[in-house]
Amino acid sequence: MGRVEQRLQELGLQLPGEAMLPPGVTTPFKWVRVRGNRAYVSGHGALAADGTPLGPFGKVPSQVSLEEAQASSRSALLAMLASLKRAVGALDNIAAWLMVYGNINADPGYPQTTLVVNPASELLVDLYGPEAGAHARTAIGMAALPLDLPVILAAEVELAA
Amino acid sequence: MGRVEQRLQELGLQLPGEAMLPPGVTTPFKWVRVRGNRAYVSGHGALAADGTPLGPFGKVPSQVSLEEAQASSRSALLAMLASLKRAVGALDNIAAWLMVYGNINADPGYPQTTLVVNPASELLVDLYGPEAGAHARTAIGMAALPLDLPVILAAEVELAA
Amino acid sequence: MGRVEQRLQELGLQLPGEAMLPPGVTTPFKWVRVRGNRAYVSGHGALAADGTPLGPFGKVPSQVSLEEAQASSRSALLAMLASLKRAVGALDNIAAWLMVYGNINADPGYPQTTLVVNPASELLVDLYGPEAGAHARTAIGMAALPLDLPVILAAEVELAA
Repeated sequence: MGRVEQRLQELGLQLPGEAMLPPGVTTPFKWVRVRGNRAYVSGHGALAADGTPLGPFGKVPSQVSLEEAQASSRSALLAMLASLKRAVGALDNIAAWLMVYGNINADPGYPQTTLVVNPASELLVDLYGPEAGAHARTAIGMAALPLDLPVILAAEVELAA
Repeated sequence: MGRVEQRLQELGLQLPGEAMLPPGVTTPFKWVRVRGNRAYVSGHGALAADGTPLGPFGKVPSQVSLEEAQASSRSALLAMLASLKRAVGALDNIAAWLMVYGNINADPGYPQTTLVVNPASELLVDLYGPEAGAHARTAIGMAALPLDLPVILAAEVELAA
Repeated sequence: MGRVEQRLQELGLQLPGEAMLPPGVTTPFKWVRVRGNRAYVSGHGALAADGTPLGPFGKVPSQVSLEEAQASSRSALLAMLASLKRAVGALDNIAAWLMVYGNINADPGYPQTTLVVNPASELLVDLYGPEAGAHARTAIGMAALPLDLPVILAAEVELAA
């Protein structure tokens, strides 16, 4: 078991199964696009263990509390890690995180989008350490997100040679 | 004629002319920024054959239906292809699509943003095939888009050496 | 003094200090993530000289006028430059701007997001010249931005070898 997966186990965290979306929602794109030493990660939301979208759903904070959105943000990171593992074989094959795009299904003018994404950033640095896990980031509020999920994360990472 | 342009012709699709924006809307940026083997594609919306912005305009789905937004999404892809052709000479010079940023002018909480971008993703894979055309993607709902267009796409691609 | 900093001085522009965010707002990410010859720049808003967030705050144009938002957009670029200088030592070490992500805290359907980001793009080209300063760009309207800032910019740049 690799270092990152060991740390996930220590934290009692499990990666979800591949996304199982509602009937009629097709995905004519790659969850992870690998090319050379780069992987581009599509927008991921929280998934339950069986890969079904994980609620609560709706706007932050009127329908989904800050605390719930923070948990959703961590779950979205785990969903990205699950897709990356399927795409590149082992989570330790990620040499460096580069950019994380944090998208929050926010009420107009909600000023706390930074706080929503912080638990995902903190978990990322915990898992990969301060060198490989360092990343630039956005954390911005959207009018709408797929399936009305409260948080969608996307990313770009560098792969080991 | 290259492979991609031949496929466009087979599908009866034409690339629009260069964007002709309303008076007063200047564009102090590059529609396509080429550097090394990468091209970064600015946000593009649907354009008519003469390069003028192509309606319908407004929010999805209250002012622009899902079906209309899907057509706008395909047209935005064609506008990106037109800009890429001007920038890199031939559409076959794109070795690989990497990331497509799908931005939808959505009503708050509209859960179907994925479906809006799907026809663009499907056309991309049709034109470039499953290897070069594979791409990661976001499909998220915005509060507002330039000129009130229903869909704006941006992208990053890899160029042939 | 490098070329870019000399031009800033000629224009009478000063870079702000490092971001000083309100109590409780932590930043478990890098303002600039450097890796190889790439730097990924996190979302930056306007900062006062002492690094505190710089108003006006709120929605464009109902709470923040187009002109105020344009000034905020220029200030956000200066904040990115300040972070880049701290990260890579000298602003002349940026060999090429690649992509600028322009995010506006917009009222629903506001069609002028392009104009909000234009002064930042124009300043960028002024400072770096038409080759290094050329960039692709998005300029899209968000439901919410951190601290209710009117504009948040992020970017990807290429560093000199």
